[in-house]
This record gives sequence, C-alpha cells and structure tokens, in this order.
Amino acid sequence: MENKRNIGIAIHGGAGTILRSKMTPERETNYRNALKEALEVGYACLQQGQTAIDAVEAAVILLEDCPLFNAGKGSVFNAEGKQEMDASIMEGKELEAGAVAAIQGIKNPIKLARKIMEESAHILLIGEGASQFAQSHQLDFEAPKYFYNAYRYEQWQRLYGKEKAQLDHSEEETKPEEDEKYGTVGAVALDQFGNLAAATSTGGMTNKKFGRVGDSPIIGVGTYANNATCAISCTGSGEYFMRAVTAYDVSCLMEYKGLSLQAAAEEAIMNRLSQIGGSGGLIGMDAQGNIVMPFNCAGMYRGFQREKEQVVEIFKSHRSH
Amino acid sequence: MENKRNIGIAIHGGAGTILRSKMTPERETNYRNALKEALEVGYACLQQGQTAIDAVEAAVILLEDCPLFNAGKGSVFNAEGKQEMDASIMEGKELEAGAVAAIQGIKNPIKLARKIMEESAHILLIGEGASQFAQSHQLDFEAPKYFYNAYRYEQWQRLYGKEKAQLDHSEEETKPEEDEKYGTVGAVALDQFGNLAAATSTGGMTNKKFGRVGDSPIIGVGTYANNATCAISCTGSGEYFMRAVTAYDVSCLMEYKGLSLQAAAEEAIMNRLSQIGGSGGLIGMDAQGNIVMPFNCAGMYRGFQREKEQVVEIFKSHRSH
Repeated sequence: MENKRNIGIAIHGGAGTILRSKMTPERETNYRNALKEALEVGYACLQQGQTAIDAVEAAVILLEDCPLFNAGKGSVFNAEGKQEMDASIMEGKELEAGAVAAIQGIKNPIKLARKIMEESAHILLIGEGASQFAQSHQLDFEAPKYFYNAYRYEQWQRLYGKEKAQLDHSEEETKPEEDEKYGTVGAVALDQFGNLAAATSTGGMTNKKFGRVGDSPIIGVGTYANNATCAISCTGSGEYFMRAVTAYDVSCLMEYKGLSLQAAAEEAIMNRLSQIGGSGGLIGMDAQGNIVMPFNCAGMYRGFQREKEQVVEIFKSHRSH
Repeated sequence: MENKRNIGIAIHGGAGTILRSKMTPERETNYRNALKEALEVGYACLQQGQTAIDAVEAAVILLEDCPLFNAGKGSVFNAEGKQEMDASIMEGKELEAGAVAAIQGIKNPIKLARKIMEESAHILLIGEGASQFAQSHQLDFEAPKYFYNAYRYEQWQRLYGKEKAQLDHSEEETKPEEDEKYGTVGAVALDQFGNLAAATSTGGMTNKKFGRVGDSPIIGVGTYANNATCAISCTGSGEYFMRAVTAYDVSCLMEYKGLSLQAAAEEAIMNRLSQIGGSGGLIGMDAQGNIVMPFNCAGMYRGFQREKEQVVEIFKSHRSH
C-alpha cells in the first residue's frame, strides 16, 4: 500500500498562447483563484479517504462550472452556435474508462463519462445517444442560457484589457487560427490506496464544423491512467495529440523504455509531439506521487497540491516538482 | 529505399467464435473468395506502383462492398434499425490520419476517412457533420435498401426490444461471451517506397444503443501506422482494445522495448489484451515486409499476399509468416 503522504492532485485549465503581456492582474487573479479552488476540492477528497477517481471528478466539475475555462458552462460555440462537449475519465487499477463526445446541454460532461465507465458496457458514447443515456441516469441538463451567459463572459474576457471596443459579430476579421481556442480542463490524482486516475473535459474549438472530435474523449490520447505507470491528461492541438497517441505514449515510455515520469512526459511533449508540429501540454502523476506539467507553448493554466504544498502557475517557469 | 520484393498486403474480415462446425462448405468458399478478391485488388495497387494508402483503401472498399462482412453494405442494424458505420485510415510516413464515426448512408466509409485525412485539418468527424463533409466532397451515398439485407434484418429483429446489443453474428441462444464474432474489416500494406499504411472499417454492433463508438475509428486503437515500426488493424471486443490502446501498443513494444513485430503483436493480443478479458485479433506488417495475424479467439477471416505467396485462412492454424 502506498504511503498516505504521497497523495496528490494536479490540474490544468488549457494551454496555448497565454501571454503575460495580454493578461491583466484581475484576470490572472480570477484564473489563479479558480485553479486553487479546484485543487482544494480535489485534494480534500483524497484527504478524506476518497479515491483518485472521486478527486479528479470533483476537481473537473469545479472547472466545468467555472466560465473561465472552455468546458461545461464555459464551452465555446461551434459553427451552429451550439456547444458540443467532450470528456473522458480512466482509473488505473482495472483500466476502466468512460468517455463522451459531442454532447449538448449537459451540465457536467465528466459526470456522464464516469457513469458510462461504471454503468455501461461501453467506453465511448456520442451525440444524441449519449444524451439519452445521461437522461436515463438522471444527470443534470441546463438550458441554453446557462451556456449562453458563459459565451458572453468569454467574449468580454477576450476584449478585456484591449484598447479597442469590438462590435458584436466582428470576429470574422480575425483569421481562424487566431480565433481558435484549445481550452480544455483536466485532472490527475493519486489516492492513499495507490490508485491513479485521470479526467479531461472540453467544449471543443470555437466555430468548429463537421462534427469534429478532438483528443479529449479518446482514451490513450487525451486521458490515460494505469497504476503501473502514470495518470495523464492532455491539452493542446488535439489532432496532433491523436496522431502521437500522447497520453499512452508517456505510459509506454515508462513501462517499455524504463523512463521516469519526468523523462517520459518531456520526451512525449518536447520531442514526439513537437516533431510533428503539435502544440500544448499535459499533466502527469505517477504512483510515487511525482508530478509533471510540461508544455511546449507560451502558457498552461495549471497547478498541483500535495501535503503542505500548493502550486498554481500560468506562464513558463523552470520549477521542478 | 525498400526492396520492391517486400511489398505486400494483409487483410481481415473480423474475428470471433468462427467455428468450423458451424460453417457450411458453400459459406466458407464465399468468404475465401471475397478475401482472395480483396487481396488481389490491393496487391495489384502495390504492383502497379501505387502507395500503401491506395492499396489498403482499395482492399477495404472491396470488403465494404461485400455483404458477407460487417462494414459498408453488410453493416448490421443498430437499435433504431439503421446502420451507423465507423472507419479510420493512417499512413506511416507523416503519421497523417483520418477517421469517421457514426455515419449513415455512405457507401464507402473508408473513402471518407481518407478524404478527412487529406482534405481537412481534422482527424475524427462524426455523425451528421461527417455526412455534410462527405457530401461537400461528392462521396457516394446509398439508399437504405442498399444496406438492407435479409440476414442482417432478421438478426436485428431477433434482438429488437431486447436490452442487449450483440456483436456481429452472435447467436441468440448463446451467451455473448461464448459466441461473439466481431465484424470489422481491415487492411495493412507496405509499398515499394517503404511506406506502411493501415485501414479499418466496421458497421458496429447489432442493436447497439446510445451512440456507442468502438475501437475501429480510433487512431492508436483500431488502426495505426508508422514507417518506423508497423501498420496495424484490429478487430474484436472494441472496448477492451480501447482500454489496452492495442494498435499503438504493438508499435511501442517494437520501438521502446525492441521487440520484433511478431513478438510485439503476440504480447499485445495474447498477454495485454487477454489479461483484461479482451477477445479478438489484429493484422500487422512491418517495414521489412513481415506479416503477423494473431488472435485469441476461435477464428479470424484473414489473409495476405506477397510476391508469389497468397494465404487465406479462417480458423486457427499455427503457420508462421
């Protein structure tokens, strides 16, 4: 049995072009407080003897409910003006997993992913069928205005601090690459029983078309957990993570090549993902309680909590954990 | 550059409880002829100097067009009496990939997967959005009667209203575990330029509900290709393959642990997949032209073709390739 002192949780709220020069002090405080709150809720689960799955679910629910992040309430609009959300969860003891893609109107996609893991024979459910499953399990749905308000808040947040006003609907001036938002939230945790778990949730890409599904709901890509190696949650340019099978790549580098979590995670992000042009990062935790949070872009909303140690960061730093 | 003599293709038409005692000679001949035809069409592409992607697409199109296999025309009925098809394709040089899930009415899902790979910025498109993309690229759709097939319809009618989904060809009176036959088709190939490619296509599970998506459209699970290691197409109990990330597992065992294709594929199927209760098999090919076709169930429709060598098999054998 693992030593209780090793329990811990790490979270992320997305990675990308997050520049200090574009961040106001107020905005930064809002993000830091939201990350802090999610960490504390997740860590409290672990302290109270709950499992790693309970902890990552609880932390991700907080992040889904916060309009600052592109998941749950804060999900962006697709090309049809609707939110299509994806989420996945995995536990490292039995390698059980659940995931949902392209679901609309549900309050907490991560709760649905867990229900799928625990109460269905399947792993990935999508669209209207996933909604039916959620309804049959009494999960909460919200009216469009719940998500609509979040969208307005995000619009305002994007403009906040800029020296110009932007008329509604004037976003078409910006190039798609500039307007794409790869927001994702995620959590990984180690409980007192030595179990690892990982969870990831996203509202997808702004203005996405054609029923695009990214890496977040894919077990082995956006999310992976295995007590023998690590728990991983990824965020970034999803298609590149899919081609690199990033989350499972970290696990294989540890299991088959004998790398440490830190060496494996850095190899997966800084070399393998970067070589094919991918951008983003991941959070990872191993069964000894080590935590890594590598990314190859400007910033990643991230943090972790272990006994007497809480860290919340946004921009680049060279701190080692 | 690879030696031209190493070009080759392997295909599968699903794995499961395929017992000699339940196979009539006529039915066996039909299956063998269909596999033979798909091999020859795919191999002809390679001989004519086309790429591995061309070869796997051509072979899978033949299998999709054949009503014997659970893909394309032969797809099973879901709980609503419709076919929802999944497919994926990947090439090993640039690690480009495309996939589609839960699409209805399209004649050849594998053609759509390739279009997504080559003409979109995305990898996985689903449902109605995927249909719109297919229509905008002039891919062929077919009316419901094209997919209608008396055998498949009866299969669905027997299960209709029952609270279970059934993998292809399971008999009503047997427990699912005892007589599962997982309908999927797939191909892997090596071309004269040393490029590997893999493709997989399926009509899913009979009477499936809730928008279930299995392993076939997931890059790294049902399909993977990397010139540095191998090309893999899987077939079997999809959820177990998803938890084991089977296709990429073979690649990692080769790249990170130094195993041969044969050792890696056997480890992935006979140990890793089997240990968590998964059932099925895969076809694999490496850049030297080695071919493997391991499975841990009663049978797998399979075959391969290399220079002056064509093999088609259904039941267990211990032949080494």
